Order: sequence, then C-alpha cells, then structure tokens
Amino acid sequence: MAEAHDAVEVIIAKRDGRRLTDSQVDWVVDAYTRGVVADEQMSALAMAILLNGMDRGEIARWTAAMIASGERMDFSALSRPTADKHSTGGVGDKITLPLAPLVAACGVAVPQLSGRGLGHTGGTLDKLEAIPGWRAALSKQEMLAQLEDVGAVICAAGSGLAPADKKLYALRDVTGTVEAIPLIASSIMSKKIAEGTGSLVLDVKVGTGAFMKDLDHARQLAETMVALGTDAGVHTVALLTDMSTPLGRTAGNALEVRESVEVLAGGGPGDVVELTLALAREMLAGAGRDDVDPADRLADGSAMDAWRAMVSAQGGDPDADLPTARHTHVVTAPSEGVVTRLDAMAVGMAAWRLGAGRAAQGEPVQAGAGVEIHARPGDRVAAGAPVLTLHTDEEDRFARALESLEGGWDRGDTAPDGVPLVLDRIG
Amino acid sequence: MAEAHDAVEVIIAKRDGRRLTDSQVDWVVDAYTRGVVADEQMSALAMAILLNGMDRGEIARWTAAMIASGERMDFSALSRPTADKHSTGGVGDKITLPLAPLVAACGVAVPQLSGRGLGHTGGTLDKLEAIPGWRAALSKQEMLAQLEDVGAVICAAGSGLAPADKKLYALRDVTGTVEAIPLIASSIMSKKIAEGTGSLVLDVKVGTGAFMKDLDHARQLAETMVALGTDAGVHTVALLTDMSTPLGRTAGNALEVRESVEVLAGGGPGDVVELTLALAREMLAGAGRDDVDPADRLADGSAMDAWRAMVSAQGGDPDADLPTARHTHVVTAPSEGVVTRLDAMAVGMAAWRLGAGRAAQGEPVQAGAGVEIHARPGDRVAAGAPVLTLHTDEEDRFARALESLEGGWDRGDTAPDGVPLVLDRIG
Repeated sequence: MAEAHDAVEVIIAKRDGRRLTDSQVDWVVDAYTRGVVADEQMSALAMAILLNGMDRGEIARWTAAMIASGERMDFSALSRPTADKHSTGGVGDKITLPLAPLVAACGVAVPQLSGRGLGHTGGTLDKLEAIPGWRAALSKQEMLAQLEDVGAVICAAGSGLAPADKKLYALRDVTGTVEAIPLIASSIMSKKIAEGTGSLVLDVKVGTGAFMKDLDHARQLAETMVALGTDAGVHTVALLTDMSTPLGRTAGNALEVRESVEVLAGGGPGDVVELTLALAREMLAGAGRDDVDPADRLADGSAMDAWRAMVSAQGGDPDADLPTARHTHVVTAPSEGVVTRLDAMAVGMAAWRLGAGRAAQGEPVQAGAGVEIHARPGDRVAAGAPVLTLHTDEEDRFARALESLEGGWDRGDTAPDGVPLVLDRIG
Repeated sequence: MAEAHDAVEVIIAKRDGRRLTDSQVDWVVDAYTRGVVADEQMSALAMAILLNGMDRGEIARWTAAMIASGERMDFSALSRPTADKHSTGGVGDKITLPLAPLVAACGVAVPQLSGRGLGHTGGTLDKLEAIPGWRAALSKQEMLAQLEDVGAVICAAGSGLAPADKKLYALRDVTGTVEAIPLIASSIMSKKIAEGTGSLVLDVKVGTGAFMKDLDHARQLAETMVALGTDAGVHTVALLTDMSTPLGRTAGNALEVRESVEVLAGGGPGDVVELTLALAREMLAGAGRDDVDPADRLADGSAMDAWRAMVSAQGGDPDADLPTARHTHVVTAPSEGVVTRLDAMAVGMAAWRLGAGRAAQGEPVQAGAGVEIHARPGDRVAAGAPVLTLHTDEEDRFARALESLEGGWDRGDTAPDGVPLVLDRIG
C-alpha cells in the first residue's frame, strides 16, 4: 500500500524541478487510476513532467506503478521462448504482419498485443481486420493455446494490462502532453512488460512520418526504453529506423495485408523484407535462437504456413479475396525524371484522408482505402506514368487526399543518395 | 467573436515557449468559461504558463479576456471620484477596515469588493461579519446608493465580475498552478478593472506571512499589475510592504475589528496607523484629492463617523459588543529579554488553527478566535510576562496552534534593527 500523499504536493515538487520520490510516484499513479487524483491534476503534472523531465529511476518507478495498476500475463509455461516487437508507428509499417509468423516459424513464440490506428499511422488490428472473418479479440486461454499451437498471436490488448496507462494516454492526447519522453517510454514499456514477453525488440522510427522527427530524440527515447526493459528483466534491444519515406509500396489496410503476403511468399518490396529480417534476427537473438536464419524460413514456405495458421486460428480465411476500394485515382508524373523524395507524412495523411484511418476513437475504417506507390525514391518515371494510385470507397475524399500530397514528392534528374533503413542499434 | 482555435494547439504553443496570439488568448479564455475547453486542458495550459511565462502584451490580453467574460461596473455617475485598494494578503492585515471609511471621510468613494479568507490569511468579509447584524451581500443598487451616501462600501463581489477568473482560480488551487505571476496578476487586476474603480492602490506583501516570500518576486508582481492597471486606464500604484511580522497586535476576526476601531478612534498600533495613512495618501493622490491629509480625518473623528455610517448601512450595529472566544491560553516568556522575531506565518497558522480561518471553502469561522500579541519585535518582556494570548471556542484547538508557534518567535538581549514597513513604491 502506497503512503498517502497530496496531488498538489506531488505536482509542485515536479513543477519546481524536484525528483519525485518512489512513494510519490506510487501514490499518484495509483490514486489517478482510482480517480482520487483528478484529470486536471494529472494533466498539470504531465505538463510539469514534459517540461522538467524525469530521471531514469523516476521513469522506472513510474513504469512499475503503471504495471502494478493492472494484471500481468505469464508465458513461462509455454514450451518455447517468447519475443515481441513494438514499433513507434510509421506510414506503411505492416512489418508485424510478416514478422510474427516468420519468428514463430523459427521456433520462438510471438505474443503481439496490438492497437488500432489513430491519425496518419495505421493500426495493425485495422489491417488484419481487412481479412474476412478475422477477429482481434481473444480470451487469455485462446491466446495461450494459439501461442502453443501456432506460435504467433496478433490480438487486441485486454483492458486489464496497465489500466493507468490507458487512462493517462487518453488524457495526454487532449492536453498537449503526448510528447514527453518519460511518459512515452513508460506508456510503451508498461504494456510490454505487463504482457510478460521474455525479450523485446523496439522499432523506433525517425523522420517526417514518425512521431520522432530527429535522430537525437529518437535515440533518447530508445535508450530510455531499453533501460526500462533491461531493468525489468526483459531482454530489450532497439533499432532506430528511417521513416522519412513510407515502408514498401502500400499504405492502407487491405493493401498492406496483400503486400505482407507477398513478403511471406518470398517476394515483396526490398525495404519491407530487409526490416522484417533485421527485426526477426534481433527477436531470435533475444530469445536465444540466433542459430536459426529467418531468411531460410521465408524461402522454404514455413513462414507462410505459420501466417495461414495464425489467420485461420483467429477466424480469418487466408484464401479469401481481400476487399478493394470502390474508386481509384491515379497520380501521374507530369514529365520524365527520377523520384527524389516521397514524404512519409504526406502519404500517411493522404491514406488517412482516403478513409484508411480514423479521426476519432471508435470510428470505422475503410478496408480497401489507401495509397499504392508505383515509384519510390530512386525510381525513374516516364512522362504520364503512374506514381501513386489512391483508393477509397468515397469519391469525394480524393480532393483532400490530393491536397495532402501537394509538395509531398519531388522529381529530379538523378537518383538521390540512399538513406540506410536501419540507422542505429541500441542495446 | 473570437476566431476558433483548438485547445491542444494553444497548449502546445505555450508549452513550446511561443507567445500566444491575441486570438488564441481570447478564444481559450472564452471557451474555458463556456466549458468548451475542459479543466484538464486549462490546467495543462496553466502549468505551461507558469513554467514558460507570458509577456506583458499576453498578460494584458489575458486580463482583458477575463474582464470580457463577465459584466463591468460603472461608477462614473457618482458625485465623487473613486479609489480602491487591493492587498495580496497578510497576517493581521485589517487595513481595509479603517482605510475605507478614512478615505471616504476625505471625499473619495471606496467601492471595496472583498473576499473571504482561505488558509492562514484572514478575509475582510469574515472580519466584518464579527459585527452583529452586518451583512456582506449588497445589490448593485444598494452598493451605489451607499457609495453616494456614505462614501464607502465593503461587500462581497457578485458572481458577475470576471467569471472566468472565478473558475480558473478554483482550478489553479487544486493543480499546483497558483504561483504563476501572469495568472496572479491577471486574476487580481481583471476583478479590479471590471469593478470600475478610477484609481487603485496595490499593497503587495513581502515576507514569511505573505504569498510572495522575497522582494524580487513581489516587485515583479507589482510591476506587472501596475502596468495592467495603467494600460486599462486605471490610475495604479503599488506599495511593497513588509509581512515578516504580523500587522498590529491582533490576528483574528473580532480581534481585528476591535483594533481597527481603535485606529479610527485615533489610537491603535503604530504600524497599522502608518500603513493605513500611507495607503490612504496614495488613494487620495490617485483620485486627485492630495489636498486632504487623512491624518486630520482620523484626529477629528470624521473617519470614525464614516465607519459607523458604513457599518450601519449594511445592517451592523457599531455599538454592539463584539463576540469573544470561550477559551484563552496565554503564552509567556520563559525568561527576561527582548522579542527579536515574531514570525507572521507562525502567527497566521496559529490563528487559523484556533478557528479564525477555514480549511475549505464554505466552512464557518469563529468570530472570537485568534491571536493577541502583547509583545512585538523590539518589546522587552519580563520572565513570565504574557507574549501572546490565544483565543478559541474549542479548547482542543490550543495544542495544534501552539505547535504552529514553536520556533515562531525569538528572544534576545538587544532589540533587532527595525525593518521599514513600506519597502518600495511602484507606479
């Protein structure tokens, strides 16, 4: 039981630049979860944390308090080790879809609790729900059974994990306090630690389409999260990866499922394959299975088998036709040249405006909506050749999507210097 | 009509250290008053303002927006000029009681809208309510008639003046955002400007018993408020006055009324007389009546006449016996010596704990409770001589009041150097 404190005392301590004591952190997180600390008090504290920071010990305690606000899962009874991945979110980031079955095919169980999208980055559950019949909600028993049988689960996080985080995240969203590294790191890591994975790989995106626009902030966030995981006994590594250009050649729900299946079939865009393999290797190493090369499992079809089993286990039909949008609009190159830039944020906004994402929680998304990319940076296009195809069920969405794309891509005479996909590794 | 903005946009602007535009300020204050901006959003903004500040133009706009949230009073139809005083609050600060009738006796009308006390500093209305029959609530018509007839009114501020401030103040109180100079200054000045006084004198207290503990912060607050008043067309001056020692020889409701009547009768403690006259001279000068010497009006009994008329006009009996507390406890000097220090905060806390103040809004206060000071700094006491007398209706309150006084006063061999009462003048 936490010692009793007073909300104003805790707020003033952080406001005045002092370190919060363990007892203050335990109390304020618990009291907020119970409704004893009011939203207006927590938002003032969140702003003080954003502006005055927290040290590593404070963040660790805050994370532990959020974990303690709910239940913890336990996969120790499984016959194989567990590994999970978290991405901070990017445009066209469908990596979870091929990655989870691929790692399962290598003998490591992947208990991936995912969320839905809000804003310009898509949500993994939204993408999978494009598959006819597939359902995101599993009971704990179903999840455990599927992990044992298939080795991979991608499902909705129950409300029991870190409820303090759920409440705080909704508050931060409306109070301008999302961008605080201590709060971002503790939000992500409280859920991943409570989920009970044995090892964790963090894909921290950097660039225009990412939450973190520059490498310094991304590295700071990655280091904070790796320290939190390590301190909590979870083998944790972070890759900093480029998100100035969308990943692959699609952004949208069914469009990305289709591309993921191409990767599992041994094809797909080079960057998606590269990142999937890089993350798979880290997950396998973290789980003690670096003797397995995931590229072999893509080549021999066992990753595809795991995908089919995973989709089927959750009610989906892996052979069903995926939904397509009712309307398409092609953006063409006005003259011949090389694409020199394709901005991830512009494409993400366009996909969102086409109906692939939602403006408010609880809204439906269009399974078929999104952007197909025919020419990526470095690709040469002829005059009049298609660069992008926009997909939507509602024709009147094209105008605003095209607005998002204005200034979102450049052509030139020569191919740009390539940016490496994996910028750094922390851990 | 203010241009529409978004709460998160305004919060983020201030969070990131940017200046709020006039349009943002107008919108956020209005939207908060209407409940469109939620408490948790305003508290995050208040914390960002506290930590990142506002410039003079922003504070002026914020003040104007708070004034615009309610009604304004207008005393221009009165036959005499108006002057008001505001004190930031101190221990034993009964100055309003003798000051308002004194200035009225000099031919300047004083429309003093006051509040109740919360915490260790007493409230003017609580003090006057110790007078049998006296009532704080007046209609606007009653207030205007009394100003014309008697020249002085001390009454409760109606809910129509600066309602945005009322809402924001209650929020700041529970979110650790009281101590922001832009918000303190705009809170005080929005009410005083909306009240419609022609001139204003600010008594900004400095010291242990005051809200501002050091001269630099007090000066910054005073300068901010003087600029706000001046810009709004109100003749405004501030005195910075010492609040390390209680004012006069009493802290408590009926006790302070008794001491105020002594001052009006031409007696009373020297410091109370000095500050009353200093503030009266500023008010008269601000109202263009510096030809009158208020000391004469104390001496010739006309200030006392104005007091009696003011109390009677609000239903009070100026001749009634004032309530006394049921129990007293005398604190004596353990040995002979000179009082070298008597801490204002310690005395204020003791008076509060004896029942003179309230812990929460809406609680009743004891009319007779408080602290009587027999020996002030510089006074010599014999062994066993009374230093303080504590008054309360509930005997079990003595123990905690005595705790507050521990370490709250010192004796020595020689008298301390005197601190001037008026430390500085701004305006």
